[in-house]
Amino acid sequence: MKTKHIPPEWAFEFHGHRCPFMPLGYRMGKLALEYLGIEREKDHGFFVFPEIGIGHPQMCFADGIQAATGATYAKGLMEKTFYGKLAATFYHPKKGAVRYSLKPEFIDEFGKFEFFAYRKKGVEPSEIPLSVADEVINWVYEQTDESMFKVEPRPDFKYTPVKGSFNKARCSICGEYVFERYVRMKDGKPVCIPCSEYEKR
Amino acid sequence: MKTKHIPPEWAFEFHGHRCPFMPLGYRMGKLALEYLGIEREKDHGFFVFPEIGIGHPQMCFADGIQAATGATYAKGLMEKTFYGKLAATFYHPKKGAVRYSLKPEFIDEFGKFEFFAYRKKGVEPSEIPLSVADEVINWVYEQTDESMFKVEPRPDFKYTPVKGSFNKARCSICGEYVFERYVRMKDGKPVCIPCSEYEKR
Repeated sequence: MKTKHIPPEWAFEFHGHRCPFMPLGYRMGKLALEYLGIEREKDHGFFVFPEIGIGHPQMCFADGIQAATGATYAKGLMEKTFYGKLAATFYHPKKGAVRYSLKPEFIDEFGKFEFFAYRKKGVEPSEIPLSVADEVINWVYEQTDESMFKVEPRPDFKYTPVKGSFNKARCSICGEYVFERYVRMKDGKPVCIPCSEYEKR
Repeated sequence: MKTKHIPPEWAFEFHGHRCPFMPLGYRMGKLALEYLGIEREKDHGFFVFPEIGIGHPQMCFADGIQAATGATYAKGLMEKTFYGKLAATFYHPKKGAVRYSLKPEFIDEFGKFEFFAYRKKGVEPSEIPLSVADEVINWVYEQTDESMFKVEPRPDFKYTPVKGSFNKARCSICGEYVFERYVRMKDGKPVCIPCSEYEKR
């Protein structure tokens, strides 16, 4: 195989189905960690911005990035840019930033596999025969990194995560806790955003 | 133990550290699947809206929800509401919606554990002694679902995912592929959003 970056079985379990894009993102994420000289992120210090959006295929690669890098959505370390592109920027405050994208020539070759014919007919990935999924997954494992990825250092990339706070208050209407940044005021009392109804306008 | 919903070891590996919130979200997610009578989502048919935002602690529970339910961020199945609350709404088009939130009384008891004293001093979860993390994780396993979660059916909840498309075009400036929804026009030619520079204004 041309890559050592094969996802562990749990990454497929996490993702929910066998598709070629999750492993692609896993590999992209591992390569970006190597490029920046960092380990998988345990806590809250490494950020990834996948250039995916909504309503298009192949977004799955960002789950591979979550699995590979530890920059998970719930830890506040991953945010989509909504550009609709098969790329991501990886940023570490002390190591800088790099952007990985899939080369168009690679995407064209990749798109010829039977897996995508099923997808275009509306068949969900878990319903596609495993042999069809594994055919394209295994083909990708045999491609070189150079044939797949464009790599661009982004020396000017800046990102400043917001300062966190543990402060919270109880909503005077529903009684639930709200972290302070999201407390709103209504009739002189603290409320949560849904109870404020300010969003309904 | 008062719960059978203990995360598998891979969920901790995915998340990156041992904290009490990931397992809480895992349990919340499994309970919501049971409530709605559905299996873990393999593909793209189940949606979760965690009410977390940015700049506050305890967001980690949504990684537990990703692990438990298969409603992952990259599959387009999870979206934060930015309400700053420890709650989530789970929605299946054929089964309806339910909201799970942590009861304030539970949050108060929970917050007394030493784990949170470390966090408030700015110690990252992976640096907190494992015994301190496991103390609160194991305490939570001994609490009943009823003492922890408020459960609210949401019969009026509506969500319509956008219709997807495989169409894509190459940006006439950078040459990269862009899915159609995100193609912009500049000087009569298709471009990607970054090359359009329309966002800089």
